[in-house]
Amino acid sequence: MAKEFRYRRRVQWVDTDKGGIIHFSNYFRYMEETETEFHLSLGTETLHRGNVPFRPRRAVEAEFLRTVTFGDLLDIYLRVEKVGRSSITYSFRFEHEGEQVARAGLTVVFVKPGEDGRLKPIDVPPNIRAALTDGPE
Amino acid sequence: MAKEFRYRRRVQWVDTDKGGIIHFSNYFRYMEETETEFHLSLGTETLHRGNVPFRPRRAVEAEFLRTVTFGDLLDIYLRVEKVGRSSITYSFRFEHEGEQVARAGLTVVFVKPGEDGRLKPIDVPPNIRAALTDGPE
Amino acid sequence: MAKEFRYRRRVQWVDTDKGGIIHFSNYFRYMEETETEFHLSLGTETLHRGNVPFRPRRAVEAEFLRTVTFGDLLDIYLRVEKVGRSSITYSFRFEHEGEQVARAGLTVVFVKPGEDGRLKPIDVPPNIRAALTDGPE
Amino acid sequence: MAKEFRYRRRVQWVDTDKGGIIHFSNYFRYMEETETEFHLSLGTETLHRGNVPFRPRRAVEAEFLRTVTFGDLLDIYLRVEKVGRSSITYSFRFEHEGEQVARAGLTVVFVKPGEDGRLKPIDVPPNIRAALTDGPE
Repeated sequence: MAKEFRYRRRVQWVDTDKGGIIHFSNYFRYMEETETEFHLSLGTETLHRGNVPFRPRRAVEAEFLRTVTFGDLLDIYLRVEKVGRSSITYSFRFEHEGEQVARAGLTVVFVKPGEDGRLKPIDVPPNIRAALTDGPE
Repeated sequence: MAKEFRYRRRVQWVDTDKGGIIHFSNYFRYMEETETEFHLSLGTETLHRGNVPFRPRRAVEAEFLRTVTFGDLLDIYLRVEKVGRSSITYSFRFEHEGEQVARAGLTVVFVKPGEDGRLKPIDVPPNIRAALTDGPE
Repeated sequence: MAKEFRYRRRVQWVDTDKGGIIHFSNYFRYMEETETEFHLSLGTETLHRGNVPFRPRRAVEAEFLRTVTFGDLLDIYLRVEKVGRSSITYSFRFEHEGEQVARAGLTVVFVKPGEDGRLKPIDVPPNIRAALTDGPE
Repeated sequence: MAKEFRYRRRVQWVDTDKGGIIHFSNYFRYMEETETEFHLSLGTETLHRGNVPFRPRRAVEAEFLRTVTFGDLLDIYLRVEKVGRSSITYSFRFEHEGEQVARAGLTVVFVKPGEDGRLKPIDVPPNIRAALTDGPE
């Protein structure tokens, strides 16, 4: 599985903090933006049309290697690492002018509300699985 | 109508920007937090139990008079200025150590989706009107 | 003075709230992004190279006319309404698919720290004034 | 080393997204708030007085186990897991009404700018080390 997708994003003023650098919480916003643009590029992003199911985040980890700041353009590379029964695992590499500044991993799970109101995992929708893989898992 | 409510909020690190001061967009977050805590104090905040209707913002204006920064404690004073047919107008005064640092006005409108899917104004719910006024408008 | 600038921005998932629509505080983030891209287009954005002075917000007002949600592309039109001694006043019009969804006004003030540590207004830098006007004020 | 600290934080409306639940990026904001309040409680938070050094995040990982939403009160438990030469590693446990909803680990590094302008790790300040440990490492 070798899907890779690039998204370019400027670090905005609001994304910085008093330390003069990007606030780390923004990397998680950028990851989600990249995931959205990736699915839009595949035609598999349907959440904007009100469709269920949605896919909350199950786990995330990130390392911050270099600092970036206001005005910097980040190149964010998304890769699909694994498509499980209910989940997708992505990796992200963040570069600034060709130098890696951060990396991350993210697992999302497709869910719908169960009878008790709690969200239950469901199968990855077939169209998304097909788009992310070359065949059945 | 003389309801006033105070909410104390610390300016967090993430709320600052590279200029070394609070980013102005956070005042709007703080206003909403104050409104929420105000309605919770009155028993009129039911959105957390999934109840409709909800109340998007219709208009807002703010002036930023002094800068504040990380660690500062803000005292936020909310007043109900007007309860209209569908709307509530609040004013906010932000103080730091007794000095006014900002002020704002905010109008929210109660809505529900119409047949065309667009949100339509509805009457202010009676329990909220009663809690915010001493009698009928 | 007829400078107008367009910036296109997608409403991201994180920009929505439980009401299913954009959270109003994001309009202020988008306004700042638009202002940044506008100054970058003019060559007058130097904050990313660590240059002083910076320009905190002095006043803002906005009206929210239609709701937008996740995935929607906003066209944000910035106009320079006034260049004062120390300040710039912008207006913003937000459109979605050709329909106006919000409008706003914003005044920023150029400042530097005074001897008492408080920020003092200074003149609009000459290169910025020249870029925003056709001649002296 | 058994320092534990509790911070209570309400999930605000702006913290939710169109899925009706908290947006995961807010857990990172809450972690930082908890860290700030922890250091304020110890007297080791000096960043608000403009003091150097500061402590960017080096690595973070989190798991999201249950969903929470608007109005929910989170109890956030911080523990100091390790004080290294330049770094502190914390763990966080998030509970809602006594049930664990998320957990996380976070490593921060004390830095100052080097001659080339890049941030370099420095020793954990002695007062912070002393406050977090019962003796020398």
